[in-house]
Amino acid sequence: MKNNYKKILLAYSGGLDTSVIITWLKENYPGCEVIGMCGDVGQHEDFEALQHKAISCGASKLYIEDLKKEFITDYIFPALKANAVYERNYLLGTAYARPLIAKRMVEIAHKEKCDAIAHGCTGKGNDQVRFETGIRAFDPNMPIIAPWREWELVSREDEIEYAEKHHIPLSITRETNYSKDENLWHLSHEGLDLEDPSQQPKYEQILELSKSPQVAPDQSTYLSIEFEKGIPIGLNGQKVEPIALIEMLNEIAGENAIGIKDVVENRLIGMKSRGVYETPAGTLLYHAHQKLEEICLDRDLSHYKEIVAHRYGELVYNGLWYSPLREALQTFVDYSQMTVTGSVKLELYKGNIIDAGVVSPYSLYSEAFATFDEDEVFDHTDAESFIKIWGLSQTVRVMLEKEYLNQ
Amino acid sequence: MKNNYKKILLAYSGGLDTSVIITWLKENYPGCEVIGMCGDVGQHEDFEALQHKAISCGASKLYIEDLKKEFITDYIFPALKANAVYERNYLLGTAYARPLIAKRMVEIAHKEKCDAIAHGCTGKGNDQVRFETGIRAFDPNMPIIAPWREWELVSREDEIEYAEKHHIPLSITRETNYSKDENLWHLSHEGLDLEDPSQQPKYEQILELSKSPQVAPDQSTYLSIEFEKGIPIGLNGQKVEPIALIEMLNEIAGENAIGIKDVVENRLIGMKSRGVYETPAGTLLYHAHQKLEEICLDRDLSHYKEIVAHRYGELVYNGLWYSPLREALQTFVDYSQMTVTGSVKLELYKGNIIDAGVVSPYSLYSEAFATFDEDEVFDHTDAESFIKIWGLSQTVRVMLEKEYLNQ
Amino acid sequence: MKNNYKKILLAYSGGLDTSVIITWLKENYPGCEVIGMCGDVGQHEDFEALQHKAISCGASKLYIEDLKKEFITDYIFPALKANAVYERNYLLGTAYARPLIAKRMVEIAHKEKCDAIAHGCTGKGNDQVRFETGIRAFDPNMPIIAPWREWELVSREDEIEYAEKHHIPLSITRETNYSKDENLWHLSHEGLDLEDPSQQPKYEQILELSKSPQVAPDQSTYLSIEFEKGIPIGLNGQKVEPIALIEMLNEIAGENAIGIKDVVENRLIGMKSRGVYETPAGTLLYHAHQKLEEICLDRDLSHYKEIVAHRYGELVYNGLWYSPLREALQTFVDYSQMTVTGSVKLELYKGNIIDAGVVSPYSLYSEAFATFDEDEVFDHTDAESFIKIWGLSQTVRVMLEKEYLNQ
Amino acid sequence: MKNNYKKILLAYSGGLDTSVIITWLKENYPGCEVIGMCGDVGQHEDFEALQHKAISCGASKLYIEDLKKEFITDYIFPALKANAVYERNYLLGTAYARPLIAKRMVEIAHKEKCDAIAHGCTGKGNDQVRFETGIRAFDPNMPIIAPWREWELVSREDEIEYAEKHHIPLSITRETNYSKDENLWHLSHEGLDLEDPSQQPKYEQILELSKSPQVAPDQSTYLSIEFEKGIPIGLNGQKVEPIALIEMLNEIAGENAIGIKDVVENRLIGMKSRGVYETPAGTLLYHAHQKLEEICLDRDLSHYKEIVAHRYGELVYNGLWYSPLREALQTFVDYSQMTVTGSVKLELYKGNIIDAGVVSPYSLYSEAFATFDEDEVFDHTDAESFIKIWGLSQTVRVMLEKEYLNQ
Repeated sequence: MKNNYKKILLAYSGGLDTSVIITWLKENYPGCEVIGMCGDVGQHEDFEALQHKAISCGASKLYIEDLKKEFITDYIFPALKANAVYERNYLLGTAYARPLIAKRMVEIAHKEKCDAIAHGCTGKGNDQVRFETGIRAFDPNMPIIAPWREWELVSREDEIEYAEKHHIPLSITRETNYSKDENLWHLSHEGLDLEDPSQQPKYEQILELSKSPQVAPDQSTYLSIEFEKGIPIGLNGQKVEPIALIEMLNEIAGENAIGIKDVVENRLIGMKSRGVYETPAGTLLYHAHQKLEEICLDRDLSHYKEIVAHRYGELVYNGLWYSPLREALQTFVDYSQMTVTGSVKLELYKGNIIDAGVVSPYSLYSEAFATFDEDEVFDHTDAESFIKIWGLSQTVRVMLEKEYLNQ
Repeated sequence: MKNNYKKILLAYSGGLDTSVIITWLKENYPGCEVIGMCGDVGQHEDFEALQHKAISCGASKLYIEDLKKEFITDYIFPALKANAVYERNYLLGTAYARPLIAKRMVEIAHKEKCDAIAHGCTGKGNDQVRFETGIRAFDPNMPIIAPWREWELVSREDEIEYAEKHHIPLSITRETNYSKDENLWHLSHEGLDLEDPSQQPKYEQILELSKSPQVAPDQSTYLSIEFEKGIPIGLNGQKVEPIALIEMLNEIAGENAIGIKDVVENRLIGMKSRGVYETPAGTLLYHAHQKLEEICLDRDLSHYKEIVAHRYGELVYNGLWYSPLREALQTFVDYSQMTVTGSVKLELYKGNIIDAGVVSPYSLYSEAFATFDEDEVFDHTDAESFIKIWGLSQTVRVMLEKEYLNQ
Repeated sequence: MKNNYKKILLAYSGGLDTSVIITWLKENYPGCEVIGMCGDVGQHEDFEALQHKAISCGASKLYIEDLKKEFITDYIFPALKANAVYERNYLLGTAYARPLIAKRMVEIAHKEKCDAIAHGCTGKGNDQVRFETGIRAFDPNMPIIAPWREWELVSREDEIEYAEKHHIPLSITRETNYSKDENLWHLSHEGLDLEDPSQQPKYEQILELSKSPQVAPDQSTYLSIEFEKGIPIGLNGQKVEPIALIEMLNEIAGENAIGIKDVVENRLIGMKSRGVYETPAGTLLYHAHQKLEEICLDRDLSHYKEIVAHRYGELVYNGLWYSPLREALQTFVDYSQMTVTGSVKLELYKGNIIDAGVVSPYSLYSEAFATFDEDEVFDHTDAESFIKIWGLSQTVRVMLEKEYLNQ
Repeated sequence: MKNNYKKILLAYSGGLDTSVIITWLKENYPGCEVIGMCGDVGQHEDFEALQHKAISCGASKLYIEDLKKEFITDYIFPALKANAVYERNYLLGTAYARPLIAKRMVEIAHKEKCDAIAHGCTGKGNDQVRFETGIRAFDPNMPIIAPWREWELVSREDEIEYAEKHHIPLSITRETNYSKDENLWHLSHEGLDLEDPSQQPKYEQILELSKSPQVAPDQSTYLSIEFEKGIPIGLNGQKVEPIALIEMLNEIAGENAIGIKDVVENRLIGMKSRGVYETPAGTLLYHAHQKLEEICLDRDLSHYKEIVAHRYGELVYNGLWYSPLREALQTFVDYSQMTVTGSVKLELYKGNIIDAGVVSPYSLYSEAFATFDEDEVFDHTDAESFIKIWGLSQTVRVMLEKEYLNQ
């Protein structure tokens, strides 16, 4: 009953899962060729070693695709403009990378004339959704193989046993066994003791991009971030290219313990899960961007944009990056950023982001209006009438209530 | 043309403004009696001294009303259950106290047969709105006098001059001249150098309830907060009454630099203003409450509640506490809290609130479902079908697009 | 591999589908007993004949459950108070009945110690979702059998052939072959020529509850509907019990061609479908209820309630009646209805509902305030100030724009 | 204390109000010149007679500005794409015209070097807000004179007396005394007996653009409307220019009693008011546009757009057409319309709009997917898994509830 695929493109990470999958695919689709594809979205990885590993595991070749620039400019920055967030705390690192990788996989699969795409996501997570909706956005008929949903291996132990039995080279690394996902924007940790939300994470063992607040230096670091139309373009007054900017901010923010989140989130698939997220540069950029918006955006627009941020974040989390709604919300967001240009100064200290001043040529903050002292632009007596009318429907209601209570 | 009021109830704080207003009222409504009312909502104040001051300034008497319990249980806790917030950062301290004080003033005004109520809010702020809508909610016909909107005094200097000319006793205090508002929930600072958002606040001069992160102790404080149906009822496993709980949390959180916010906000009246807010206990409680909700609330309910929190916060900020919409949203919020019972452990360290574990008898987090390993409750193969249908409308769209592109 | 169920409870309608399913179940679960259950939610049906039919098709017994009262008071009226609607036009008739029937089925299944529940919904519709989430809300472990998703019969022709082969009594009725669902609230029609949305429905063949506008009498019918706290309690000034009220309104409204809708809707399952709905009483009640709300609800509450109506309708449509969010929204809705008491007069004429006057003891409409002429309650000069402040943020923005354009 | 304006631009309609205002302005600003401006937005008016009238009332000249094209293409059509509506029923006719007229007035005022703008709106209505925010959007410093909020005339009788006393020519017209506003999009009626919402409007006296259902012809009229990217471009398969299209549709729809609404609405200014609106072409276009969207828009986008329509309508109603939020929402709306191209066939009959078929090259309706019969694109067994995961959070909740109830 199984399809007889001849050439399968596999999303390859070099971890235990996808290494085992190469063998499993060749076993289950006899005679098939397996091509690997690894998207470089900024994870710390020895790509040369990865190449060797993929081949030695049985892949016929490995595409290593540098997606960093596209990742930042076409996925991260548009979402940063939206202040997209999922359930208040999760800055969506993984969720931005998946649709991009899926898109490139379809391109390669078409070029290589592959007849199926495989990935190593489990059947309980969000990433399988993001990968598969991403793939179908570009090729709705492409068959997708997700071995974790099919095979009999149900634990890491089973996998290791399978690997040993099939002589799959297992590099014993210094890694912990947390399930991790890394890119330029974030590093997530799940599994093991984190699966018990009554327990505090062992940060000393977990954190890789960031120091903990306790270990961070006992002195402040000041920096300024420059934005143009909602997009970060500079650091401390110097123009910096997107990738370099994120890398520099990850360095500075990580050193100062910025961006560590411990969350229980609601997966699309219906269960709650717990993870620890490190998003140093991202946390800093969101903070700075929102600070700048405080002075540049009109109230009504700003309040509505807060609501849009929820829906946008939900869509991205749920694998719907390539949806008409996400795209339409993007036009709203992009329009809102026309005046979000300026510079935000921040003091970083042991996990704290302390506002140190914000300026914009388009600031709507007017000292003349805000001051407690006399001014020429605002007539205090207007306020009395405003309040009467602001509360008029209440006044009518209370008056009428009294009337019908008296009847 | 002026009304000839005989007996005026004044919201009296003891500051320069309301002291001057007593004299001004007697000057402008010749022969009128001025009664003061000061709501004790937890501000640091020598109420005995206040009594003397009011009388020596010309008031015939001063009501000092202990509103602390009502403030916490009827205003703060209902809003905490909603996670009400204004523009992401402002925890609405002042906005909760105003409607309560207004309500009590109407009660006293009726008892004393006053023919008008006066307050010392300026014509540019939000508090005039909150006071006046609050008063009209209980007596829509009560005349309201707001001298700041009427008199010729346009600056603090004018006021001091007026006070000296009229022999109003000016206690030279250690206070800075920031415009402040304090209650059990928060302390706000506005004015002076804060009016320039390009400048970082001088926290060493400003902070009163909190230490700054730099000055806070270099060691962690652990605590747990217990909730029942969304309401905090205990600390470290001990039941604590509401007022005492807030006071204890203010102490602990303030010591650890929790809850300092520097915001440019959009006032109802149409301009942006900048303030520094200290909300130590409040920030801790919001964090803990949301942490508990993470495990106790169903996804759909939780996502909708995030949206409700915006509207709720907006209503409170805008002086619409006593509105049918706020009340109807409250029933939604209260219902949502039925299972928000449990304990949240937190580590406080130099401005950081670090999650240290959360438990609830109603937790919807299930390790059995979340685990990466085998389980009996979730069939991984279901996911494949789910994703196909989750993305079906996209698949249809993409397929049809190809069709009409081919025509 | 199939489970060996001994006793299966089947949702039995008496149509071709569920008649065939009895045989199919007995064939596929050899030795099993099949009990039928038919929920009487007001469909036009000869229940005695149904009883015979079920037995003659092989069921061991048939429960006929009178759910009409519960249907109206616990499902229809709560949703009417919400003005729940799906995609502007669909009044959710089927979606209200399913969760109620599912609940009763679980009760019967438990009483009869059935080890599975079966239903005749297809794999493309919404009702399978509503049934199954409804069942799992009361017994998450109850196995559910949906033959349409399993068997090899893929069309009505296959079914008829199967029925003939198995000697299943086929009553050739006067029915068209549209797929229909009927209850006290509505009658829906799908399938056949309706599957082409470019074609107008043949109303003369389709409509059963309503006359078409062309055929409806050429004279007006006047009626008044009385509400108490959002619930309809009377007709033309006489108190009427819920079931009788709906029946009487169906009669009157149907006669006058009220409530015929032709919609292309988005199914939960991801595709669009087209249906014709007849909801005579429902359409009248929604109209009347909203008319009454126009005068009884405060603006802010009313505007928010419009938004809630969307989400409420979406939840019901999507089979989430028994969800914490629907229940929490219900508390909001119920609170909002405290003053929605009064009488609405309507003129019905050939498909038109023409407002003929509305009164309420709690009306917030005040002729005194609304009039163009002089009054004592509203000072026109207040408006000038109100407008200045209403537009102040715009004024600031425009002034600042001019400034930075001049730089 | 009054400003000494030399040249005032008055929004002149030719009615009693603005005729009286010319004299009043010259009386109150001695020596001032009054220039009239009348925006032609499609109202039925003898503009030549208007010219004479303005001059004979004392205006130095009258600008008659043909704004019809701009009105339709820059205000009506963008809002139609949004399905903008206020409180479910009001299609915002007046609210679209005001900002356009205000914009042109500022242009003329600048050209003529006027030092103030005057209008004849009362102090209780919405139009004063729309005019003044509209004016300030282009010139925040332009003084605005609203005689109705200042003068001592408090009723129509006062006005007539004033007119007679000042020899202002009063043309006794066939008009009723309802307060009316007319443009290409609508005609509104307020005042007199309409101020009592318990009374049905006397349509035979009120309606001007439309026949009532009773009087409309007893036969159906069929028509089709063609749209391109959400904009109506043709009628019955023929391309028609915007103005002509609206005129033709007003004719056809009015004849068939389409678009008569009787509403109690919430004015911005805080009170409820009652009006009768005739919007024949508008009602038809909204219906047709939404019908086309049913087949062309993706579900998520469509549901979100329903919410956006409320906010958009609220902004327009509240005089915030020229706001950053309305503009940003417009970009969202415009994007959503990319595929809203096609033709909608409608049957009009005595007040009913009956759908008669809809087609689009971008239709997302797929008979292949929707059909009850066999197909190759949808696997029914997927639904079972989908439903399990769709309801998984419910399943987990119910299972855990049972657990803690058992403890």
